[in-house]
Amino acid sequence: MTAHTAPVDTFDYLVFGGTGDLALRKLLPALYLRDKAGQITGDSRVMAVSRSQLSPAEYKAKAEEALRQHLHADEFDEETWGRFGARLDYVAADATTTHGWGELQEHLKGRDEIVRVFYLATSPELFGPISERLRAFGLVTEKSRVVLEKPIGRDLASAKRINDEVGSVFAEEQIYRIDHYLGKETVQNLLALRFANSLFEPVWDAGHVDHVQITVAETVGVEGRGGYYDNSGALRDMVQNHLMQLLCLVGMEPPVSLDQEAVRDEKIKVLRSLKPIGVENIAASTVRGQYRAGAVNGAAVGAYAEEAGAGNGKPSNTETFVALKVEIENWRWSGVPFYLRTGKRMPAKVSEIVIQFRQVPHSIFPRGAGEITPNLLIVRLQPDESIRLNLMAKDPGPGGMRLREASLNLSFAETFKSRFPDAYERLLMDVVRGNPTLFMRRDEVEAAWRWTESILDAWEARGDSVKPYIAGTWGPSQSVALIERDGRTWHDDAMTTG
Amino acid sequence: MTAHTAPVDTFDYLVFGGTGDLALRKLLPALYLRDKAGQITGDSRVMAVSRSQLSPAEYKAKAEEALRQHLHADEFDEETWGRFGARLDYVAADATTTHGWGELQEHLKGRDEIVRVFYLATSPELFGPISERLRAFGLVTEKSRVVLEKPIGRDLASAKRINDEVGSVFAEEQIYRIDHYLGKETVQNLLALRFANSLFEPVWDAGHVDHVQITVAETVGVEGRGGYYDNSGALRDMVQNHLMQLLCLVGMEPPVSLDQEAVRDEKIKVLRSLKPIGVENIAASTVRGQYRAGAVNGAAVGAYAEEAGAGNGKPSNTETFVALKVEIENWRWSGVPFYLRTGKRMPAKVSEIVIQFRQVPHSIFPRGAGEITPNLLIVRLQPDESIRLNLMAKDPGPGGMRLREASLNLSFAETFKSRFPDAYERLLMDVVRGNPTLFMRRDEVEAAWRWTESILDAWEARGDSVKPYIAGTWGPSQSVALIERDGRTWHDDAMTTG
Repeated sequence: MTAHTAPVDTFDYLVFGGTGDLALRKLLPALYLRDKAGQITGDSRVMAVSRSQLSPAEYKAKAEEALRQHLHADEFDEETWGRFGARLDYVAADATTTHGWGELQEHLKGRDEIVRVFYLATSPELFGPISERLRAFGLVTEKSRVVLEKPIGRDLASAKRINDEVGSVFAEEQIYRIDHYLGKETVQNLLALRFANSLFEPVWDAGHVDHVQITVAETVGVEGRGGYYDNSGALRDMVQNHLMQLLCLVGMEPPVSLDQEAVRDEKIKVLRSLKPIGVENIAASTVRGQYRAGAVNGAAVGAYAEEAGAGNGKPSNTETFVALKVEIENWRWSGVPFYLRTGKRMPAKVSEIVIQFRQVPHSIFPRGAGEITPNLLIVRLQPDESIRLNLMAKDPGPGGMRLREASLNLSFAETFKSRFPDAYERLLMDVVRGNPTLFMRRDEVEAAWRWTESILDAWEARGDSVKPYIAGTWGPSQSVALIERDGRTWHDDAMTTG
Repeated sequence: MTAHTAPVDTFDYLVFGGTGDLALRKLLPALYLRDKAGQITGDSRVMAVSRSQLSPAEYKAKAEEALRQHLHADEFDEETWGRFGARLDYVAADATTTHGWGELQEHLKGRDEIVRVFYLATSPELFGPISERLRAFGLVTEKSRVVLEKPIGRDLASAKRINDEVGSVFAEEQIYRIDHYLGKETVQNLLALRFANSLFEPVWDAGHVDHVQITVAETVGVEGRGGYYDNSGALRDMVQNHLMQLLCLVGMEPPVSLDQEAVRDEKIKVLRSLKPIGVENIAASTVRGQYRAGAVNGAAVGAYAEEAGAGNGKPSNTETFVALKVEIENWRWSGVPFYLRTGKRMPAKVSEIVIQFRQVPHSIFPRGAGEITPNLLIVRLQPDESIRLNLMAKDPGPGGMRLREASLNLSFAETFKSRFPDAYERLLMDVVRGNPTLFMRRDEVEAAWRWTESILDAWEARGDSVKPYIAGTWGPSQSVALIERDGRTWHDDAMTTG
């Protein structure tokens, strides 16, 4: 908590899917922490909405239990809970009927002038129906905003349909498509690094960058989500949103300002510059994998197909791992591959962007000075947020020039001891402030789907089957081959050693 | 002591001026520490030579006293002293007569095959006569090297004469003109930083560097050296050697290798590219100062003219401070000023190079994000050796983008706890190894004098008198004006706060 935490306007936060996992595990803790930080003002309220027949008191008990479970011990305190609990309310309503909507109307009466946020933490099929009900019951005010959770559809057509449905009720500037990766401290810091320093932008191009790696690795399997996941897969679930958003932030041209439209205009230019992957280049540019039984963190785990709700024991062709070689066809990045990979049951839970600069063109150092390794900028989003710069320096001491790699922390994680806010904390407040910079615009989502769908189509056209990999490894050997063919190597070591 | 300290060949180190301040305060401690580190092999010897009539035992006592005084308490130990003391020898000899030279001959008999170093820690007028005697007595072997201490002359003509005299006895590759600044760990690290990283060289030019500052500030006055100093002044004493060497290392093109000739070829190209300062631009490009009474580190100190041996109470026109605006007229640096300053009785003892990069061309950040300060690379040689990079990063925390300057240590000073060797330790061993990379070649010294002399001549031609400054300040106000005229500012704060 710093002196910089500016209070936001009084608001009503309506969380649809209020009894769901996301609401209890992420949204309520984020709002609680913002209340604790003194950022929430006046009689701001947090209203959970779902089909479950609960009394407000029952919901409050559920919320308290969730907060005690998901917050750190030193974060939960009675005083804040007293204040936050008093803001909590609950309404049972069903998006598919009119049940409960009149009551919701009652709860919001007289509060039309304050910021109103509808957070749709539900299945995307409900985004349209809920929006329609909100309009029908006159709940959409001028100061209303709606937050949409991913996934927004499962292909371009379904994304367009959802966007049309929500768009018929809300203006585009009222719609906040959330990708919590964009709320990460280090993603913000990446923007600061690129555009508040004159040192990096001159080398941020094909003349100086050798390639970029983006890895989002999970150790978990599909957990309870097997049914959803088997119908989706890693490309839809992770690449189309998180990885492509990170790719855009690394690759975009300098926006004219940090204003919402300026940043999103630059991001979509990247999406539109992506070299399409289709039947002709699918084999050279993509690897699909699915985990077999193995061990993660020393514990034996089963194969994907055996997990509850996934393949249900039957063979499944859904990918739990994908690696891509992506090219941005513009002046800045021509010839610089962006290697993307994401998977479940990997050796470590880590999300990292590695920008590898070119090797020095010529070594002036004697052989005995040791190897010169290329400079790396490593942006880590998980598990610990940090930005590190790997440089060569002289190994101090007598006896001539010996070189050594030095890793510099460019974040304040160590010098600045204050707690980092969670991505959801930042983004939930950005919605109240009316700042959509870190949210996805309709055209972005659709451009991402358009590019992704071509890969899905090519896989289908070729009838490719997934490559097996042992749970607890970095994916199928074909993923190694994908990058090694180009004389490059995944930075796995840095990921497991931290 | 690190595992990397490679032993050097057995040697005889003959230190002329062996009872002088430099020998006792710097050279003996440096050789002792190399012995302690295990770098000195076999029956290597250290032979002090001077006019004083001392027995070897008396000199050894003097040496032990000096070591106990100038080494840290944990550096002096009886075991090393036993070994090092046994290497010590003393011969009384007079450069201006033949007295003692026969004895020296005796001491070196049968040792022609091992590395022999003549270290001339004497007045430069003796460099020629000593060399001549060394030849006359047949002491110059194939494996001989001679080390010359600064100043090499007091102008181009005297430098040439000394170089001619020494050069008539020794081949150029046997002559090691020492500038201990070049032996500093951070100077080596600057070379590593520039040429072992692909990140810096692309921004190391007029397109990306705003300007460079080189400051060598002392807190002391002229101490006992008043007589010498009043005949010399800051330009001759500090700029012609130390500051110009640092300028060369910052400004030079990438050498083809770290080989002696390659590096020195590049350094001299910088010296030859310096825009001459003559009568027409002397006023705009130089400031001369002399300290008046004031206070340094809280203690009252007298004026220069009152110090023993300096002006002797009479007015003196010798500068104890000089500031220069230097321009390198080549493609890389055209339009990038190098501001140099050095002085006595400054607020802090600090030697520092600051490379200030250009401001970002355009800020994309909102006004509330705070000021963007230009990136700085700060190479500190004294008092603590370090290289720091000042970047802008995001101030972590909720509530929007706020920028903050982050200072990164690019040296290993903190991570690598091992002791840094003193510059003399490195350089004395480089002489034994036969590596003159960090020493000045004849043409460099003469090129530096040629450029410096033009300033001296212009000052004389204009009859400029020195500007007064209060002891304990950063020099005369004209020095501030010199840089502020260009819309720039000396980085004084960083220097006093460390």
